[in-house]
Amino acid sequence: MTTRAELAALDAADPLQSFRDRFVLADGLIYLDGNSLGALPRHTAARLQDVITREWGQDLITSWNRNDWIGMGTRVGDKIGRLIGAGPGQVVCADSTSINVFKLVAAAVALRPGRTVVLSDHGNFPTDLYMVQGLASIAGQGVTLKLVDEGDLIGAIDDTVACVLTTEVNYRTGWRHDMAATTKAAHAAGAIMLWDLAHSAGAFPVHLDAVGADLAVGCGYKYLNGGPGAPAFLYVASRHQATIRPPLSGWLGHDAPFAFDLTYRPAGGIVRNVCGTPPVLSMAALECGVDVMLEADMAEVRRKSVALADLFHQLVEDRLPGQFRIISPRDGDRRGSQVCLAHDHGYAIVQALVAAHVIPDFRAPDILRFGLTPLYVRYVDIWDAVERLGAIMAAETWRRPEFQTRAKVT
Amino acid sequence: MTTRAELAALDAADPLQSFRDRFVLADGLIYLDGNSLGALPRHTAARLQDVITREWGQDLITSWNRNDWIGMGTRVGDKIGRLIGAGPGQVVCADSTSINVFKLVAAAVALRPGRTVVLSDHGNFPTDLYMVQGLASIAGQGVTLKLVDEGDLIGAIDDTVACVLTTEVNYRTGWRHDMAATTKAAHAAGAIMLWDLAHSAGAFPVHLDAVGADLAVGCGYKYLNGGPGAPAFLYVASRHQATIRPPLSGWLGHDAPFAFDLTYRPAGGIVRNVCGTPPVLSMAALECGVDVMLEADMAEVRRKSVALADLFHQLVEDRLPGQFRIISPRDGDRRGSQVCLAHDHGYAIVQALVAAHVIPDFRAPDILRFGLTPLYVRYVDIWDAVERLGAIMAAETWRRPEFQTRAKVT
Repeated sequence: MTTRAELAALDAADPLQSFRDRFVLADGLIYLDGNSLGALPRHTAARLQDVITREWGQDLITSWNRNDWIGMGTRVGDKIGRLIGAGPGQVVCADSTSINVFKLVAAAVALRPGRTVVLSDHGNFPTDLYMVQGLASIAGQGVTLKLVDEGDLIGAIDDTVACVLTTEVNYRTGWRHDMAATTKAAHAAGAIMLWDLAHSAGAFPVHLDAVGADLAVGCGYKYLNGGPGAPAFLYVASRHQATIRPPLSGWLGHDAPFAFDLTYRPAGGIVRNVCGTPPVLSMAALECGVDVMLEADMAEVRRKSVALADLFHQLVEDRLPGQFRIISPRDGDRRGSQVCLAHDHGYAIVQALVAAHVIPDFRAPDILRFGLTPLYVRYVDIWDAVERLGAIMAAETWRRPEFQTRAKVT
Repeated sequence: MTTRAELAALDAADPLQSFRDRFVLADGLIYLDGNSLGALPRHTAARLQDVITREWGQDLITSWNRNDWIGMGTRVGDKIGRLIGAGPGQVVCADSTSINVFKLVAAAVALRPGRTVVLSDHGNFPTDLYMVQGLASIAGQGVTLKLVDEGDLIGAIDDTVACVLTTEVNYRTGWRHDMAATTKAAHAAGAIMLWDLAHSAGAFPVHLDAVGADLAVGCGYKYLNGGPGAPAFLYVASRHQATIRPPLSGWLGHDAPFAFDLTYRPAGGIVRNVCGTPPVLSMAALECGVDVMLEADMAEVRRKSVALADLFHQLVEDRLPGQFRIISPRDGDRRGSQVCLAHDHGYAIVQALVAAHVIPDFRAPDILRFGLTPLYVRYVDIWDAVERLGAIMAAETWRRPEFQTRAKVT
């Protein structure tokens, strides 16, 4: 039987141990929601003060050149590229994940004339589906969203499919697609593969170039620790960059934005996928989060993430037998960086956990989702979280009225 | 003949005088580019520290409820609404101006079945045109961008026009459309009127509700002093809110985002026009800028803006006769809040001005653009700016080689 002391010893020997101190975390708080909003890197506040007081306050408009605000989107993009196996010049930081899905799905369909199907699955994060539905509502060449169960995705790819779109890791269950096999199947059918890396980038090593991915999008505020609503990113493989034509053709994606031509002419390279002026303050915070991540060995991050999840599963089975349905995959290879438990009273139990300083999140209808972020989550945190969960279940604390009221954001 | 002493007396008597101290401005700097990037309000840095260290660092994911991040877009939107004559519930802060143009043009065309023309003018800011071109490239129902000279806009509105789209103030010349007359003409022809308020919001009083405007967008980082790349806003008149269907249908515009349905169903009210997760840090900075603006009497702001521009025109004519072509309108009613001078060597002259601590900006091919932001620009600043401009012209300082090299951002 595992003991807390054994886990404390694992923490003491953890090669990632020193990273915890790079983040601001209140004493006693067990934060298992870095997959919704990553924790605050310790150096972000000072960097933002500098951006605000010096770059904006003093240098004002000249910062676009002097402090290279104009190059920030590609600079941060290239850094993110290093975390997701993308060579330089293929990633840019811009807009939100939803907006980037729209850009790239529209562009993908245009790359496959005569095909209209965008194939996705029921496990994809809904906003990806909503954006395709929005595109379909206005798209002249015809766009049809086809949804299958996530395990059936590869089998459903045929020569009607213009674009296969899914999120590598299911946000609700942690189930993980086989990126190489899915990409290969898409290409075999002549389709474009578009990956949403919201729960991948910064969570484990991703190999976009190596698997031959075409397009990808991802989120800055989860595992990249970029801050609330941090801008998102998008990836376009070099081979598609000259032919892709983004429908959200804003001025900063123009070949010569400051010529102020009346007709759009796309910039070369990845920059054409930029639209309007980026939120510089939010992007500067994202860069801080990415910089910390780049110091870590992603293989080590992955190894620890798998170990934390295995431990979590084991402790729940050993200590809370039969109380929860474990829905995250037991096989580490088929799992992202989260543990998911189902319970009819999941919402109230999550509220009781938050009151006990353990922060997971709830995903309707009945899922307790625990994000594992190895840079700042320790083995003992998993022990303590399961302890507190056990206490809540034993005392039925979750039945308290204050834990039943649904907040706006769950 | 005006003297500097007379202008200093005007500043001393200026009812807006106390506002200058609310902004960070280096000694000796004359900042005439608040229409590209507004100056830093003094309280923004402390507010951002609080958002970063307390709301993000301590409260983490719970801030979406506890610190009402989820309500930030409509809260800031309503505040901006007070500056542009829009009653509550009609403005939301989201995305970039370009993205918002796309949303609303697509929605406007859908509101007028059988019509395909989006009418705009050569004076509109190019990104607005580019976004319509992007929409036209994918839009099934057919969208055609038609451009006319800005003075011919009203006359070109006919019953083929689905949507009239223009920026109230020409970014290059400062020429200002007649909002009431243009809106009326659009309605007489059965068209939807969409205003871009990039150079209006925070610059002078706007009366969207009173003129019966349908839709509007605008920018957060110019006259609203929201910081670099601050999120933009959009306005949808109440009467259109139930029928409008935004094509960028992201999850935060869903009626129940946390139900995670597989099918998009638009939220009621203005919220359906939100798409993805907003950049909270950048939006918090924008709120600081808007809050300062709300303390000012916009009629007073306008009065001073007109006086500053009239003074600028007069000083250039008196002291630099024949050296520049004054292209901003002399009639205050037909002018935004900027003064524009044309010169063949405009770019180099702007660089020489920047070196002399006067910051205007350059707009291709030959325009020196001076933004007038009455909360922090004084009458003596206009005097001193023209002095320094005169010195540069007399000594031909602008001929120096270092002033000829074009930067990425001009």
